[in-house]
Amino acid sequence: MREDYAFFHSLRVRWAEVDRQDVVFNGNYLLYFDVAITEYWRALIAGQEAKVKEQMAGWMQSLYVVKAGVEYHASAHFDDELEIGMRLTKIGRSSMRFVPEIYCGAEHLVTGELIYVYKDPESGAPAPVPQELRALMLGFEKMAPEGT
Amino acid sequence: MREDYAFFHSLRVRWAEVDRQDVVFNGNYLLYFDVAITEYWRALIAGQEAKVKEQMAGWMQSLYVVKAGVEYHASAHFDDELEIGMRLTKIGRSSMRFVPEIYCGAEHLVTGELIYVYKDPESGAPAPVPQELRALMLGFEKMAPEGT
Amino acid sequence: MREDYAFFHSLRVRWAEVDRQDVVFNGNYLLYFDVAITEYWRALIAGQEAKVKEQMAGWMQSLYVVKAGVEYHASAHFDDELEIGMRLTKIGRSSMRFVPEIYCGAEHLVTGELIYVYKDPESGAPAPVPQELRALMLGFEKMAPEGT
Amino acid sequence: MREDYAFFHSLRVRWAEVDRQDVVFNGNYLLYFDVAITEYWRALIAGQEAKVKEQMAGWMQSLYVVKAGVEYHASAHFDDELEIGMRLTKIGRSSMRFVPEIYCGAEHLVTGELIYVYKDPESGAPAPVPQELRALMLGFEKMAPEGT
Repeated sequence: MREDYAFFHSLRVRWAEVDRQDVVFNGNYLLYFDVAITEYWRALIAGQEAKVKEQMAGWMQSLYVVKAGVEYHASAHFDDELEIGMRLTKIGRSSMRFVPEIYCGAEHLVTGELIYVYKDPESGAPAPVPQELRALMLGFEKMAPEGT
Repeated sequence: MREDYAFFHSLRVRWAEVDRQDVVFNGNYLLYFDVAITEYWRALIAGQEAKVKEQMAGWMQSLYVVKAGVEYHASAHFDDELEIGMRLTKIGRSSMRFVPEIYCGAEHLVTGELIYVYKDPESGAPAPVPQELRALMLGFEKMAPEGT
Repeated sequence: MREDYAFFHSLRVRWAEVDRQDVVFNGNYLLYFDVAITEYWRALIAGQEAKVKEQMAGWMQSLYVVKAGVEYHASAHFDDELEIGMRLTKIGRSSMRFVPEIYCGAEHLVTGELIYVYKDPESGAPAPVPQELRALMLGFEKMAPEGT
Repeated sequence: MREDYAFFHSLRVRWAEVDRQDVVFNGNYLLYFDVAITEYWRALIAGQEAKVKEQMAGWMQSLYVVKAGVEYHASAHFDDELEIGMRLTKIGRSSMRFVPEIYCGAEHLVTGELIYVYKDPESGAPAPVPQELRALMLGFEKMAPEGT
């Protein structure tokens, strides 16, 4: 539900993103999620010190999508203005789960799921989410430390 | 597992499909699934009468993706030759579920899920999968009529 | 040159739009031009009566790209904020030529060319650009009626 | 003209590549050219020694598109099988010009132009096309050494 979301990113559907049935091609919602999560990271570090911003670039490189899903309730069309809500629903030792939702005005079009794993840049093995990143995210989401 | 698949479609990763980490952008796997299912439909009606081929065009227009998912096990890279296995795992009254898997040589990169609903072209409401289409698919997949 | 442009549209480079060399894939500049020209049409009719807005939808459907070109001076990278200038440089009996330019801050990255032909929706043959559309465009561009 | 081409690459138009008018989005032809030129490079070194194949990887990284253009004669549609002819028409000291053409059956859909410049990987300045690459290309195209 819309009220569950503190963070939204808006974008307009491009001509090249709709198919011959004038609906957004199903794979493009993952593109929209990706655009929204980039803005989520930007919002997360807005107002933080330069040092945090530098760290963020490294953290982002260490986060890998391991699962993505989309449920399609209704279609987006050319030139629609979409609002993409992005919300962390769980943060574990090395993984985090986001549940994006897409709205067009009052209409709820899409619900998604994105699971990321934090990996050690050298070994490629799952590694603990850095404490600073975890604290930033819990604060941003106003979640309790247990992260659920 | 590879042995579960009777149908495969091959394609080569394009330059524009990989990102700055030289891995296929996560949303592009839904594009690959879509390419593979188009070829699946083509294989389904190969050798059928012209009448079936005409019907197929209408059936395809009536099938809507309601859910799509991807689990990422390993990454595809530029110029990799991928094999996309496509398999019907369940056909209900008005819905069908496919489980695509993507391989690069012996490596299993991705497992997906695609759920389609057959809709009445006029009302947009879920409608029974036409008997001829159901029979074609069960035959193609060598599945028992209950479809599970 | 930047000063030649009255209309600009801004956008941010998406992760999926850059390639493994971390530069925007060359074909994506035509996508950016297309996004910008959609906004150009929107700006053209902003403040016009409802009747004009309805006509615009039909006019847009009758305009076909017959030629497109891109000259690459410098590269755009992930997350860059680009400004796309769009400008009509010539309007003939049935054709029009736009020269888009893309900037990132002070840097001039790309110059393009887009030639559209107005076609009769039924015959598909080139047809005169409607007088109302021509007048709107010349006014918007503050061009003299000869249109050059 | 088709007879001018010794090298063709075939591909089938994907659902996600056509727009709501059921024609291939204009920017996607640059994507098709890029796919075809990748295959052109592959054909160029087929049958060459391993050493040449290794060099090719470096040469490709040093070639930058500086200009691209498309002329649209007719439209490609979903599921069309396209043939993309690729041909070197000029090779200068540090630049090369290709003229791709796209056909669907007997119909000539698109003519393009691609200009690449060979750049020094370190300085980024235009550098002479390596002799081995030049010789390979002239041989492949059966062009005289002056390259015009």
